[in-house]
Amino acid sequence: MLNNTALLDLTFQALADPTRRAMLARLTRGPASVSELAQPLSISLPAVMQHLGVLEASGLVHSEKVGRVRTCRLEPGVLSLAEQWLNQRRIEWEGNLDRLGVYLESMNSGGEGHEDGK
Amino acid sequence: MLNNTALLDLTFQALADPTRRAMLARLTRGPASVSELAQPLSISLPAVMQHLGVLEASGLVHSEKVGRVRTCRLEPGVLSLAEQWLNQRRIEWEGNLDRLGVYLESMNSGGEGHEDGK
Repeated sequence: MLNNTALLDLTFQALADPTRRAMLARLTRGPASVSELAQPLSISLPAVMQHLGVLEASGLVHSEKVGRVRTCRLEPGVLSLAEQWLNQRRIEWEGNLDRLGVYLESMNSGGEGHEDGK
Repeated sequence: MLNNTALLDLTFQALADPTRRAMLARLTRGPASVSELAQPLSISLPAVMQHLGVLEASGLVHSEKVGRVRTCRLEPGVLSLAEQWLNQRRIEWEGNLDRLGVYLESMNSGGEGHEDGK
Protein backbone atom coordinates (compact mmCIF):
# COMPACT_ATOMS: atom_id res chain seq x y z
CA MET A 1 0.00 0.00 0.00
CA LEU A 2 1.43 3.36 -1.02
CA ASN A 3 1.40 6.26 1.43
CA ASN A 4 -0.12 9.56 0.33
CA THR A 5 3.25 11.15 -0.53
CA ALA A 6 4.24 8.31 -2.84
CA LEU A 7 0.70 8.25 -4.27
CA LEU A 8 0.84 12.00 -5.03
CA ASP A 9 4.29 11.57 -6.65
CA LEU A 10 2.97 8.85 -8.97
CA THR A 11 -0.35 10.62 -9.62
CA PHE A 12 1.17 13.97 -10.60
CA GLN A 13 3.78 12.09 -12.67
CA ALA A 14 0.97 10.23 -14.45
CA LEU A 15 -0.86 13.53 -15.08
CA ALA A 16 2.26 15.16 -16.60
CA ASP A 17 1.59 13.80 -20.08
CA PRO A 18 -1.07 14.95 -22.59
CA THR A 19 -1.81 11.40 -23.85
CA ARG A 20 -2.43 10.12 -20.33
CA ARG A 21 -4.60 13.16 -19.54
CA ALA A 22 -6.62 12.44 -22.72
CA MET A 23 -7.03 8.80 -21.60
CA LEU A 24 -8.23 9.96 -18.15
CA ALA A 25 -10.61 12.49 -19.73
CA ARG A 26 -12.10 9.65 -21.82
CA LEU A 27 -12.44 7.40 -18.73
CA THR A 28 -14.31 10.09 -16.75
CA ARG A 29 -17.14 9.48 -19.26
CA GLY A 30 -17.20 5.75 -18.43
CA PRO A 31 -15.15 2.54 -18.78
CA ALA A 32 -13.42 1.84 -22.10
CA SER A 33 -11.46 -0.95 -23.75
CA VAL A 34 -7.80 -0.37 -24.65
CA SER A 35 -8.80 -0.14 -28.36
CA GLU A 36 -11.42 2.50 -27.54
CA LEU A 37 -8.80 4.46 -25.62
CA ALA A 38 -6.30 4.18 -28.48
CA GLN A 39 -8.71 5.09 -31.31
CA PRO A 40 -8.93 8.91 -30.91
CA LEU A 41 -5.26 9.22 -29.90
CA SER A 42 -3.74 8.00 -33.18
CA ILE A 43 -1.04 6.07 -31.32
CA SER A 44 -0.17 2.37 -31.36
CA LEU A 45 -1.68 -0.15 -28.96
CA PRO A 46 1.76 -0.84 -27.35
CA ALA A 47 2.13 2.92 -26.69
CA VAL A 48 -1.34 3.00 -25.10
CA MET A 49 -0.44 -0.04 -22.98
CA GLN A 50 2.69 1.75 -21.78
CA HIS A 51 0.72 4.85 -20.76
CA LEU A 52 -1.91 2.59 -19.17
CA GLY A 53 0.88 1.01 -17.09
CA VAL A 54 1.82 4.44 -15.69
CA LEU A 55 -1.85 5.26 -14.97
CA GLU A 56 -2.34 1.89 -13.22
CA ALA A 57 0.86 2.26 -11.16
CA SER A 58 -0.55 5.48 -9.68
CA GLY A 59 -3.91 3.82 -9.02
CA LEU A 60 -5.70 6.40 -11.21
CA VAL A 61 -6.93 3.62 -13.48
CA HIS A 62 -7.78 -0.02 -12.92
CA SER A 63 -8.02 -2.46 -15.81
CA GLU A 64 -9.35 -5.99 -16.07
CA LYS A 65 -9.09 -8.47 -18.92
CA VAL A 66 -12.14 -10.57 -19.68
CA GLY A 67 -11.63 -12.88 -22.63
CA ARG A 68 -9.67 -10.86 -25.21
CA VAL A 69 -10.87 -7.44 -24.07
CA ARG A 70 -9.10 -5.36 -21.40
CA THR A 71 -11.54 -2.85 -19.89
CA CYS A 72 -10.20 0.25 -18.11
CA ARG A 73 -11.97 2.20 -15.39
CA LEU A 74 -11.14 5.44 -13.61
CA GLU A 75 -10.51 5.28 -9.85
CA PRO A 76 -11.90 8.69 -8.85
CA GLY A 77 -10.50 8.57 -5.28
CA VAL A 78 -6.90 8.99 -6.49
CA LEU A 79 -7.83 11.89 -8.79
CA SER A 80 -9.62 13.42 -5.82
CA LEU A 81 -6.49 13.14 -3.63
CA ALA A 82 -4.50 15.25 -6.15
CA GLU A 83 -7.37 17.74 -6.43
CA GLN A 84 -7.55 18.03 -2.62
CA TRP A 85 -3.82 18.75 -2.40
CA LEU A 86 -4.16 21.65 -4.88
CA ASN A 87 -7.39 22.79 -3.25
CA GLN A 88 -5.67 22.94 0.13
CA ARG A 89 -2.87 25.10 -1.29
CA ARG A 90 -5.45 27.53 -2.78
CA ILE A 91 -7.32 27.74 0.55
CA GLU A 92 -4.04 28.54 2.35
CA TRP A 93 -3.12 31.11 -0.32
CA GLU A 94 -6.53 32.80 -0.14
CA GLY A 95 -6.45 32.73 3.69
CA ASN A 96 -3.06 34.43 3.53
CA LEU A 97 -4.42 37.11 1.17
CA ASP A 98 -7.42 37.65 3.47
CA ARG A 99 -5.14 38.09 6.50
CA LEU A 100 -3.00 40.54 4.50
CA GLY A 101 -6.17 42.45 3.52
CA VAL A 102 -7.32 42.68 7.16
CA TYR A 103 -3.84 43.80 8.21
CA LEU A 104 -3.66 46.50 5.50
CA GLU A 105 -7.18 47.67 6.41
CA SER A 106 -6.25 47.90 10.10
CA MET A 107 -3.10 49.86 9.14
CA ASN A 108 -5.27 52.16 7.02
CA SER A 109 -7.87 52.68 9.78
CA GLY A 110 -5.07 53.29 12.27
CA GLY A 111 -3.55 55.86 9.92
CA GLU A 112 -6.87 57.63 9.44
CA GLY A 113 -7.48 57.64 13.20
CA HIS A 114 -4.10 59.27 13.64
CA GLU A 115 -4.95 61.89 11.02
CA ASP A 116 -8.33 62.54 12.69
CA GLY A 117 -6.68 62.94 16.05
CA LYS A 118 -4.37 65.66 14.78
CA MET B 1 4.47 31.72 -24.13
CA LEU B 2 3.51 28.16 -23.28
CA ASN B 3 0.13 26.82 -24.34
CA ASN B 4 -2.10 25.20 -21.71
CA THR B 5 -1.10 21.63 -22.65
CA ALA B 6 2.62 22.35 -22.27
CA LEU B 7 1.90 24.32 -19.10
CA LEU B 8 -0.05 21.41 -17.57
CA ASP B 9 2.77 18.99 -18.53
CA LEU B 10 5.35 21.14 -16.73
CA THR B 11 3.07 21.91 -13.79
CA PHE B 12 2.13 18.30 -13.03
CA GLN B 13 5.80 17.32 -13.55
CA ALA B 14 6.81 20.00 -11.03
CA LEU B 15 4.18 18.72 -8.58
CA ALA B 16 5.43 15.11 -8.84
CA ASP B 17 8.10 15.57 -6.18
CA PRO B 18 7.64 15.84 -2.39
CA THR B 19 10.40 18.47 -1.96
CA ARG B 20 8.87 20.72 -4.61
CA ARG B 21 5.40 20.25 -3.07
CA ALA B 22 6.85 21.22 0.34
CA MET B 23 8.39 24.35 -1.25
CA LEU B 24 5.03 25.26 -2.81
CA ALA B 25 3.22 24.64 0.47
CA ARG B 26 5.68 27.04 2.16
CA LEU B 27 5.14 29.68 -0.57
CA THR B 28 1.33 29.57 -0.20
CA ARG B 29 1.96 31.17 3.21
CA GLY B 30 3.89 34.06 1.59
CA PRO B 31 7.16 34.86 -0.22
CA ALA B 32 10.40 33.30 1.05
CA SER B 33 14.11 33.51 0.35
CA VAL B 34 15.93 30.45 -1.00
CA SER B 35 17.54 29.95 2.45
CA GLU B 36 14.12 30.05 4.13
CA LEU B 37 12.87 27.46 1.63
CA ALA B 38 15.90 25.22 2.23
CA GLN B 39 15.89 25.43 6.04
CA PRO B 40 13.04 23.00 6.94
CA LEU B 41 13.88 20.64 4.06
CA SER B 42 17.36 19.60 5.28
CA ILE B 43 18.73 19.69 1.74
CA SER B 44 21.60 21.69 0.26
CA LEU B 45 21.13 25.10 -1.35
CA PRO B 46 22.20 23.75 -4.79
CA ALA B 47 19.49 21.05 -4.50
CA VAL B 48 16.91 23.72 -3.60
CA MET B 49 18.05 25.83 -6.57
CA GLN B 50 17.58 22.82 -8.86
CA HIS B 51 14.02 22.24 -7.60
CA LEU B 52 13.37 25.98 -7.85
CA GLY B 53 14.43 25.82 -11.52
CA VAL B 54 11.75 23.16 -12.18
CA LEU B 55 9.13 25.20 -10.31
CA GLU B 56 10.07 28.35 -12.25
CA ALA B 57 10.05 26.54 -15.63
CA SER B 58 6.40 25.62 -15.02
CA GLY B 59 5.58 29.18 -13.97
CA LEU B 60 4.38 27.95 -10.52
CA VAL B 61 7.01 30.10 -8.83
CA HIS B 62 8.68 33.36 -9.74
CA SER B 63 11.92 34.44 -8.10
CA GLU B 64 13.79 37.72 -8.08
CA LYS B 65 17.25 38.52 -6.77
CA VAL B 66 17.70 41.80 -4.93
CA GLY B 67 21.23 42.28 -3.63
CA ARG B 68 22.33 38.88 -2.32
CA VAL B 69 18.85 37.58 -1.54
CA ARG B 70 16.68 35.70 -4.04
CA THR B 71 13.02 35.95 -3.03
CA CYS B 72 10.52 33.37 -4.32
CA ARG B 73 6.79 33.91 -4.77
CA LEU B 74 3.96 31.57 -5.73
CA GLU B 75 2.11 32.28 -8.98
CA PRO B 76 -1.36 31.08 -7.98
CA GLY B 77 -2.78 31.21 -11.55
CA VAL B 78 -0.72 28.22 -12.67
CA LEU B 79 -1.67 26.18 -9.59
CA SER B 80 -5.27 27.09 -10.34
CA LEU B 81 -4.97 25.81 -13.93
CA ALA B 82 -3.95 22.36 -12.65
CA GLU B 83 -6.73 22.41 -10.05
CA GLN B 84 -9.28 23.37 -12.73
CA TRP B 85 -8.19 20.47 -14.94
CA LEU B 86 -8.78 17.99 -12.07
CA ASN B 87 -11.98 19.76 -11.05
CA GLN B 88 -13.32 19.44 -14.61
CA ARG B 89 -12.65 15.68 -14.62
CA ARG B 90 -14.52 15.29 -11.30
CA ILE B 91 -17.50 17.28 -12.64
CA GLU B 92 -17.62 15.05 -15.74
CA TRP B 93 -17.30 11.92 -13.59
CA GLU B 94 -20.07 13.02 -11.22
CA GLY B 95 -22.28 14.06 -14.18
CA ASN B 96 -21.77 10.61 -15.62
CA LEU B 97 -22.74 8.98 -12.30
CA ASP B 98 -25.86 11.20 -12.12
CA ARG B 99 -26.92 10.20 -15.65
CA LEU B 100 -26.36 6.54 -14.76
CA GLY B 101 -28.51 7.03 -11.62
CA VAL B 102 -31.33 8.62 -13.64
CA TYR B 103 -31.11 5.82 -16.20
CA LEU B 104 -31.21 3.08 -13.54
CA GLU B 105 -34.13 4.82 -11.84
CA SER B 106 -36.04 5.05 -15.12
CA MET B 107 -35.32 1.34 -15.76
CA ASN B 108 -36.61 0.59 -12.27
CA SER B 109 -39.79 2.68 -12.71
CA GLY B 110 -40.31 1.14 -16.17
CA GLY B 111 -39.93 -2.33 -14.67
CA GLU B 112 -42.44 -1.55 -11.92
CA GLY B 113 -44.81 -0.07 -14.50
CA HIS B 114 -44.57 -3.29 -16.47
CA GLU B 115 -45.25 -5.35 -13.34
CA ASP B 116 -48.26 -3.14 -12.50
CA GLY B 117 -49.62 -3.56 -16.02
CA LYS B 118 -49.63 -7.34 -15.79
